[in-house]
Amino acid sequence: MEHPECLQAGHAHGEKLVPVTFTVRSTKKQEVLDITQQVAEVVAASAVPEGIVVVSALHTTAVIIINENFDPNLNDDFLAALSLLIPAGKWKHDVVDGNGAAHLKSAVVGSSQTVIISQGKLLLGRWQNLMLVDFDGPRERTVAVQVVKS
Amino acid sequence: MEHPECLQAGHAHGEKLVPVTFTVRSTKKQEVLDITQQVAEVVAASAVPEGIVVVSALHTTAVIIINENFDPNLNDDFLAALSLLIPAGKWKHDVVDGNGAAHLKSAVVGSSQTVIISQGKLLLGRWQNLMLVDFDGPRERTVAVQVVKS
Amino acid sequence: MEHPECLQAGHAHGEKLVPVTFTVRSTKKQEVLDITQQVAEVVAASAVPEGIVVVSALHTTAVIIINENFDPNLNDDFLAALSLLIPAGKWKHDVVDGNGAAHLKSAVVGSSQTVIISQGKLLLGRWQNLMLVDFDGPRERTVAVQVVKS
Repeated sequence: MEHPECLQAGHAHGEKLVPVTFTVRSTKKQEVLDITQQVAEVVAASAVPEGIVVVSALHTTAVIIINENFDPNLNDDFLAALSLLIPAGKWKHDVVDGNGAAHLKSAVVGSSQTVIISQGKLLLGRWQNLMLVDFDGPRERTVAVQVVKS
Repeated sequence: MEHPECLQAGHAHGEKLVPVTFTVRSTKKQEVLDITQQVAEVVAASAVPEGIVVVSALHTTAVIIINENFDPNLNDDFLAALSLLIPAGKWKHDVVDGNGAAHLKSAVVGSSQTVIISQGKLLLGRWQNLMLVDFDGPRERTVAVQVVKS
Repeated sequence: MEHPECLQAGHAHGEKLVPVTFTVRSTKKQEVLDITQQVAEVVAASAVPEGIVVVSALHTTAVIIINENFDPNLNDDFLAALSLLIPAGKWKHDVVDGNGAAHLKSAVVGSSQTVIISQGKLLLGRWQNLMLVDFDGPRERTVAVQVVKS
């Protein structure tokens, strides 16, 4: 868990609801990183009781997903499933960057998730966690979070 | 169509826009259930003329999609296509729960949909319907709906 | 870039934030069309400094994605990857319309994207562009855009 300064600066004291950004760092080529706690802190700092929060990876080779994070094998399964579906090294774009598959996986899965806020907290099911998936690490990745009052 | 009490309690009388939840019950291992009418009722009860509505399955083995629901074969096609892409019984997580494929399909497709509200109604194209897809039924599933004024 | 009248009518002068629609025309069976500029104009006309914008394809055989649009090969790769994953001509729905694969691709990818607005502009990463993908062209397609203040 990181505590970037922007978490304090963004939403505290019921001020204007501006986007908050934080970074996470992947340490492998492909990795799933749980960001539920960071997003929950942004929501808590916003003091918004009811609304929604948009969580967006500002990248084209990393995404935000919702999945269970109790069994870590599921993260390996997710990365393996997508690599079976969209194998590396088969794409025109690979001539430019070598990361065509990472782009394609990202475009299929989608960059952002929207979660409902209820009673000041993320309204997630018992097994739902927010995760950043890096398909082209290791890298520092930026996540933007915007709370909207309903 | 179900008429859970929460539909009345949540948004009626132009009160505070709090999340509304309702449940649907799948009767097969995999099933596509149309929830357009339930969501339309939440939007109507909210009396919000313009905005958005977030429709979220609070699960990691069921999702919300938008698709045509005129030809029921299309629902069979959707379930068949995903089972071809992500076959059952091949995943590390299967040792724990046996439902690895249901998790992976859900994470790829995404738990929620956001629909624009125009003139008090869902702004959907002629062929667009909102559907809950259960990848690991039969079960009761909870859908959360949050209307946000623009 | 198109300049439909509705772009002026919808959000100008800080008036009520109603949905804005515009159309784009695909010229091939499958095509990726960049709509970042059109959406940016809607956001600018809204004069909303902070919030979100929902961008929705009002169709079941076309979607909105976020991807890099610097290397045009990536668009070809995206269409090719999805056609490998969900081949044409294999689906029950094809008896009705012949476009089963286009429906399935759309339901998997998702009809809409939500982008954060910061300082009056789309908060996109350096390589992120908004694109409409037509899986069943050539056709005129309608995109609905709703700005929501945070």
